[in-house]
Amino acid sequence: MKIDLNADLGEGYGPWSMGDDDALLGLVSSANIACGFHAGDPLIMQRTVESAKARGVDVGAHVGFPDRQGFGRRAMHIDPTELAAMVTYQLGALAGIVRAAGYRMTHMSFHGALGNMVAANAKLAEPLVRAVAAFDRELLIVSSTSRAIEGAAAACGLRVATTFLADRAYDDDGLLVPRGTAGAVIHDPALVLERVQRLLCDGVVITATGRALPMQATSILLHGDTPGAVEFARTIRAAIETAGGEIAPVSHLIAGGPGRGPS
Amino acid sequence: MKIDLNADLGEGYGPWSMGDDDALLGLVSSANIACGFHAGDPLIMQRTVESAKARGVDVGAHVGFPDRQGFGRRAMHIDPTELAAMVTYQLGALAGIVRAAGYRMTHMSFHGALGNMVAANAKLAEPLVRAVAAFDRELLIVSSTSRAIEGAAAACGLRVATTFLADRAYDDDGLLVPRGTAGAVIHDPALVLERVQRLLCDGVVITATGRALPMQATSILLHGDTPGAVEFARTIRAAIETAGGEIAPVSHLIAGGPGRGPS
Amino acid sequence: MKIDLNADLGEGYGPWSMGDDDALLGLVSSANIACGFHAGDPLIMQRTVESAKARGVDVGAHVGFPDRQGFGRRAMHIDPTELAAMVTYQLGALAGIVRAAGYRMTHMSFHGALGNMVAANAKLAEPLVRAVAAFDRELLIVSSTSRAIEGAAAACGLRVATTFLADRAYDDDGLLVPRGTAGAVIHDPALVLERVQRLLCDGVVITATGRALPMQATSILLHGDTPGAVEFARTIRAAIETAGGEIAPVSHLIAGGPGRGPS
Amino acid sequence: MKIDLNADLGEGYGPWSMGDDDALLGLVSSANIACGFHAGDPLIMQRTVESAKARGVDVGAHVGFPDRQGFGRRAMHIDPTELAAMVTYQLGALAGIVRAAGYRMTHMSFHGALGNMVAANAKLAEPLVRAVAAFDRELLIVSSTSRAIEGAAAACGLRVATTFLADRAYDDDGLLVPRGTAGAVIHDPALVLERVQRLLCDGVVITATGRALPMQATSILLHGDTPGAVEFARTIRAAIETAGGEIAPVSHLIAGGPGRGPS
Repeated sequence: MKIDLNADLGEGYGPWSMGDDDALLGLVSSANIACGFHAGDPLIMQRTVESAKARGVDVGAHVGFPDRQGFGRRAMHIDPTELAAMVTYQLGALAGIVRAAGYRMTHMSFHGALGNMVAANAKLAEPLVRAVAAFDRELLIVSSTSRAIEGAAAACGLRVATTFLADRAYDDDGLLVPRGTAGAVIHDPALVLERVQRLLCDGVVITATGRALPMQATSILLHGDTPGAVEFARTIRAAIETAGGEIAPVSHLIAGGPGRGPS
Repeated sequence: MKIDLNADLGEGYGPWSMGDDDALLGLVSSANIACGFHAGDPLIMQRTVESAKARGVDVGAHVGFPDRQGFGRRAMHIDPTELAAMVTYQLGALAGIVRAAGYRMTHMSFHGALGNMVAANAKLAEPLVRAVAAFDRELLIVSSTSRAIEGAAAACGLRVATTFLADRAYDDDGLLVPRGTAGAVIHDPALVLERVQRLLCDGVVITATGRALPMQATSILLHGDTPGAVEFARTIRAAIETAGGEIAPVSHLIAGGPGRGPS
Repeated sequence: MKIDLNADLGEGYGPWSMGDDDALLGLVSSANIACGFHAGDPLIMQRTVESAKARGVDVGAHVGFPDRQGFGRRAMHIDPTELAAMVTYQLGALAGIVRAAGYRMTHMSFHGALGNMVAANAKLAEPLVRAVAAFDRELLIVSSTSRAIEGAAAACGLRVATTFLADRAYDDDGLLVPRGTAGAVIHDPALVLERVQRLLCDGVVITATGRALPMQATSILLHGDTPGAVEFARTIRAAIETAGGEIAPVSHLIAGGPGRGPS
Repeated sequence: MKIDLNADLGEGYGPWSMGDDDALLGLVSSANIACGFHAGDPLIMQRTVESAKARGVDVGAHVGFPDRQGFGRRAMHIDPTELAAMVTYQLGALAGIVRAAGYRMTHMSFHGALGNMVAANAKLAEPLVRAVAAFDRELLIVSSTSRAIEGAAAACGLRVATTFLADRAYDDDGLLVPRGTAGAVIHDPALVLERVQRLLCDGVVITATGRALPMQATSILLHGDTPGAVEFARTIRAAIETAGGEIAPVSHLIAGGPGRGPS
C-alpha cells in the first residue's frame, strides 16, 4: 500500500514564520505551498520550492482567499468570475517560481474557507475547477472528499487525489466540519492516530455523528502549525511504515494523463 | 520602417480605473500589463489580456514594486534576492492568466521607480534580468536605453527591445530623468510629437542638456493616464503612418530566438 | 423643515480617484469619509477633512471591511470581537486626522456589505455599536433604518440619525435591498427625485413590494460615484430648497448630548 | 536613579506572532505598540493595550512605513507631506484603541527604516514632528539621540525622551548604525550588558569607532524578537535594580507640560 503524506507549507509572511517547514519537508512527500494571498510571499515561496525540490517532494499551489489578516479562514463572498481569476493568478505565480527553479508543479488544492466553500457548493466548484483546467489540464486537484469538486473535475477531465485530514471532523457527506464549529478540530494525538489507522486498515472515517463513512484516500494531510506538529508527523509516518505502507509523492500515485481518472 | 506602439495598461485596481484601456488597445501594437503589485488585480489582468488577444496586441508583464498606494513610483530598498523573487512571481502570475486565455506572453518591462533603479544600476539589473531569463529565455525585455539592462541581458542571452518615451526627458547617458525632477515630464503635445519625429527621421533624442543623443528604438511608449491621452496617441499613430511607417507588435520586430540579440 | 444632505467621500486610493469630491463638498452638509479599509488613505483623508472644514461640512467616519479590492462591498465573516477592534481603529484614525486639522468629528456610519450586515443583525450591531460608544458617546450614528442598529444604540445611549438612500430599494422592514439583487439600485433620476419628494412631503418610502413605509429621515444620502452624480445632487438640493427646505449639517439636527435620542 | 525600560510590542499580524509580549510586559515600564503599518492589527493592538493597562505600563504609538512584508525595515522614499499624514493616521488609530480601553497614550516613536531616516534628516524630521505636535502637544517623542528630532521637537514645543538601544552600534554623531551594516547589531549578551552598565554608571556609549560618546538616556530599549530576549530582559532589569536603579514609566520621568523640555 502506497500513500502520500502532504502538508501545507510556506505559510509565513515577510518577517513572520509559521510552523517548522524544514522539519516537515523531511517527513512529507508532497507540499501545498501558499501563493501570497492568505499567506506566503515571493521569497518564502521560492525558498520552499527549492527545499522541496532538493528532497524530491511534490510541489502544489495552495490557493486561498485574498485575506492575509484572516489567514484565508474567513468566508468572503466574491463573484465566481473574479474568484476564478484569483485562482489562475495564484497558480501562475507559484508555477512561475517553480519553473524558474527548474522544477515542476504537480498539483493544487483549495485552502481554508475557500476550500470549505468550494467543497460544499457545485456552483462555486465548477468555475474554479474550470479555471484550473484552463491553466493546466495535467494538474492534480488534491481535495478532501467532495462531490462538488469531484463532479466539476470529472466534467473538465481533471484528476482528483483525495486527501484525508486526520485531525478534522467530517460530516456524513464527507465534508469537513468548518473550523469554529465545536469539535471541528481533533486535538488528541491518540485519537488522530487511531483515525489514520482506521483509514488505512478499514478504509473508513468515523463522522461527527458516529457513522463509519467509507473513504479511499490517496494522501494524508499533516498540519504543521500546531505545537508538537513535527513530532506528531513523525509518529504518523512511523505508523504507516510499521504497517507496511510506503510513502510516495501524490503525482506517483495517480495514474495517467488528464481525463483518465484516479488509478 | 516598422515600429511598435506600446502602452502601460491594466492599471486599475478593484473599483478604480485608470485611463481608457479600450481606446488605447485599438491604437497600440503591444501592451505592458500591471501584475498586481503596483496596480492591477487578477480580474483586470484577465480582461486586459482577453481584449489584447482579441485585437492581436502583444502582451507583456509590467513588473513593479509592491506598493499600490505609491503606484510603484516610490523608490524602495529591497534586497535584490527578494526583489528577484518578486519579479518571478509577477511574471508567473501574468503568464498564468495569459496561458489560461490561450494566448502567449511575449515581453516584460520594469515599471516606475523600479524601472529607474534597474536602468541605472548594473548591480540591481543583473539579478533581476537573470530572474527573467530563469523564468523564460524567450521573453523580450522592453526597456528605455540602459547600459545596465542591456549588459545584463546580453550576459543571459536575453533580447532587449528599446522603447522611446516621447514625453519624458532623457539625460546624456540615455537614462530617463526621474519623475519629480523639474522638466522630467514633457506636457506640450507639439513638443512630444516633434520628439517622435526626430526619433523616426533622424534617430536622435534631444537630452535635457540639449545634446542630440543617437537612439535606435524598436518601440514608442504611449502614456494612457493623462488627460487627452487617447487623442494624442491617435495623433502619434497618424504621424507615423503618414510618414510611411508601419505599426507592428514588438515580438514581430525583434528577430530570432534567445541569445541572438536584436535584429 | 431642515434636512441634512450627506455623501460618501474620500473614496480614492493612492493614484486612483473616485467621484468629484470637490463638487459634492459644495452641495452637501455632511461627509462620510472612508478610513483606509475599503477606500481612502491618510493623505486623501487629510485633504478631504481640510476641504470639509473649509466649507463647514460635518465630518464623519465611514467604516468598512478591510477589503480595498472589493471596495467593502463583499460580505466577510469576521469574528465580532475582531470587527469591533477594526471599527475602533478606523474611528481613531479619522479622528486623529480631524484633530490634527483642528476640526471635530461629528458622526460615523457603516459602509457597504458591513452596513448591510450590521443593519440586519442585532448580534453584530451590538458589539460594533458598543465599540462606537466606547470610543466616543457623543458621536452620532448615521444609518438607514434598522431596528438592530437603533436598538443597540439606545442600549448604549448613542443617538442615531436616519439617512434615506433615495436611489436604493427598501424591503418591508426598512432594510436596504443588497447590491447585486435585481432592482437594488434605482438608476432613473426622475424616480429617485420622486422618492425624495415622497419622503419630504409624505414621510414615506415605497418599498420593493409596493408598500408605503413610513420613514422619518434626518438626512438624505447622495451617491458621488455614478455618472452625472454631481448634476443630480444639484437637482435634489434645488428640489429641497424650492420646497422650502433648509440644508443643515447632521449634527445641527439631532438634539442634545448622548442618551437623549433624536429631537 | 530612575530609568524607563521600554520594548517594541504588538508586532504580530493576523495569525502570526512575534516575540513573547506577555513576558516582556511583565518586565518593561513602557510599550511601543505597532499601529498596523509595518506590523500589528486592530485586535492585536487592542489586546496589547489592555495588557499594558492591566500592568500600569505606559503605551505609545510605534509609527512605521506602510510595508508589512518588509516589517518597516526597508527605506521608502515617500513625499514628506504624505508621510506626515501617515504618522497622524497611525497616532490616531492607536489613540482610538487606547481611548476605547479607558487608558491614555503617553508617547510615540519612529520604527525601523523610518526611524533611521527621520533621525538623520532634519528635512524629514520637521514635518513629521510637526504632525505629532498637531495631533497632541502632550505626547512625548521617545527617540535614540538625534539632533534632527531634538531640534524639530524643540521648535514645536514637544518633549523628547532619549532611549538607549543597548544592542545596537552607534556612530560618532549618536545615530544608530543602520541594520544591514556589519556590526550594526550586537549579539553578545555580555557586551550588551556592559553597554548598559557604562551608560548607567558613566553616562557614555562606546561608538563603532571606539569613542566614548556622552549620552543621557531616560529609557533603555529591550528587543523582544530575538531568541533569549525575555531572559536577557530579565538580566538587564536585575542589573539596574542591583545597581540601585528604579524602573519607572517614561511619562513619570519627563517633567511638565509641553514646551518645558526634559527635566
